[in-house]
Amino acid sequence: MSKLRIGLGVDFHQLVEGREFWLGGILIPHDRGALGHSDADVLLHAICDAMLGAAALGDIGTHFPDTDMAFKDIDSKILLQKTMALIEAKGYQVVNIDATLCLQAPKIKPYVPEMQAIIAQFTKLTTGEVSIKATTTEKLGFVGREEGVVAYANVLLEKV
Amino acid sequence: MSKLRIGLGVDFHQLVEGREFWLGGILIPHDRGALGHSDADVLLHAICDAMLGAAALGDIGTHFPDTDMAFKDIDSKILLQKTMALIEAKGYQVVNIDATLCLQAPKIKPYVPEMQAIIAQFTKLTTGEVSIKATTTEKLGFVGREEGVVAYANVLLEKV
Amino acid sequence: MSKLRIGLGVDFHQLVEGREFWLGGILIPHDRGALGHSDADVLLHAICDAMLGAAALGDIGTHFPDTDMAFKDIDSKILLQKTMALIEAKGYQVVNIDATLCLQAPKIKPYVPEMQAIIAQFTKLTTGEVSIKATTTEKLGFVGREEGVVAYANVLLEKV
Ligand SMILES: [Zn+2]
Ligand SMILES: [Zn+2]
Ligand SMILES: [Zn+2]
Repeated sequence: MSKLRIGLGVDFHQLVEGREFWLGGILIPHDRGALGHSDADVLLHAICDAMLGAAALGDIGTHFPDTDMAFKDIDSKILLQKTMALIEAKGYQVVNIDATLCLQAPKIKPYVPEMQAIIAQFTKLTTGEVSIKATTTEKLGFVGREEGVVAYANVLLEKV
Repeated sequence: MSKLRIGLGVDFHQLVEGREFWLGGILIPHDRGALGHSDADVLLHAICDAMLGAAALGDIGTHFPDTDMAFKDIDSKILLQKTMALIEAKGYQVVNIDATLCLQAPKIKPYVPEMQAIIAQFTKLTTGEVSIKATTTEKLGFVGREEGVVAYANVLLEKV
Repeated sequence: MSKLRIGLGVDFHQLVEGREFWLGGILIPHDRGALGHSDADVLLHAICDAMLGAAALGDIGTHFPDTDMAFKDIDSKILLQKTMALIEAKGYQVVNIDATLCLQAPKIKPYVPEMQAIIAQFTKLTTGEVSIKATTTEKLGFVGREEGVVAYANVLLEKV
């Protein structure tokens, strides 16, 4: 039987004025930010969920509930670190990550290398094993109206 | 060449009053349910589609058309069973399943272990190889307005 | 360490009157078509993005920017060919592709075998390794209102 496991994470956040916009572990200059209990980093949340899902360890809401004040405004890099510890404790390592951010504005391409470096560090990968893609929704739906942001992450794990 | 194949299923259903709400093979107490020709189990449909897709066997609409009265109000566990027979007939077994339900209400976490047990049984997996995650869309879009439900499922198959 | 890599592509286009509707490399008879800088083939774009993501080679916007007149109205089969060359140059081959088209109308099932044959040819697969599934969104959201089309593609690559 294969030692590989696949996982898919999907995360959604509203975009509102008066919030910092954290994405992929860094602060993005923008006139609005993602709303949430933690720092609302949609990209890191989707990656955490994909890792937890591949290992069948529940989801981000199970491990880091938004009703727990311990996670209020928390840096999602800490959640990624905790997620990595959970999958390692179950004997898994990460093979590769491919994430897609659906966002109308701003352009995040200039920030991708820094995001890749952060995610690679926390998941013990090289930056060549961490992909971050971005797309608008061509003005369609709530992403197109800049009311929200969505991220998808696909993760491959291997039992060591 | 690798003996592994990946598949991704995506399914959508409207939520309406006066329908039972079947999810992951069980009946969920709720003031509305998913509309569809079968029992409209969005989670099992996404999983069937991911399995069929990984094996390049068409999709759920090909095998179980909503114009065929044989599938009217059918229990989607029967569709999952038929899907499993189709992929086994092509020489595949399931390695793992990771599914995500996008639903504003109700909370489905209490039902997840029972869903996992059912899906594991029909796909010949252990519950540790079947992941079911849930997320709201943070009130965004048709899921946020409780007009509909979406499920994504990622499946890894292996040629035996 | 596994030689496999997974990728997930997601693409969106508006549907408007007065445009040809290119899908999976072929022209679909319809009263509207997808809007975009290239031929706006949402299915091929999602597949290209999944391939690039699995290989951590950026995304379709990086390689084929919609600000570059070289890609104006371009046949997306050329983009798929260029994408294949990029992943092969990095030492990868494609193991399988599973794509899902979310579209309210028209029915694309009759066109699927031709799409599979085209995609298989450009990715050096057999048609039994290329899956194209289709679903409506049950009238929900911008896809349900026929304002747009969405495609998801899951790709497995192997280092040769
Ligand atoms: Zn989140
Ligand atoms: Zn369905
Ligand atoms: Zn496109």
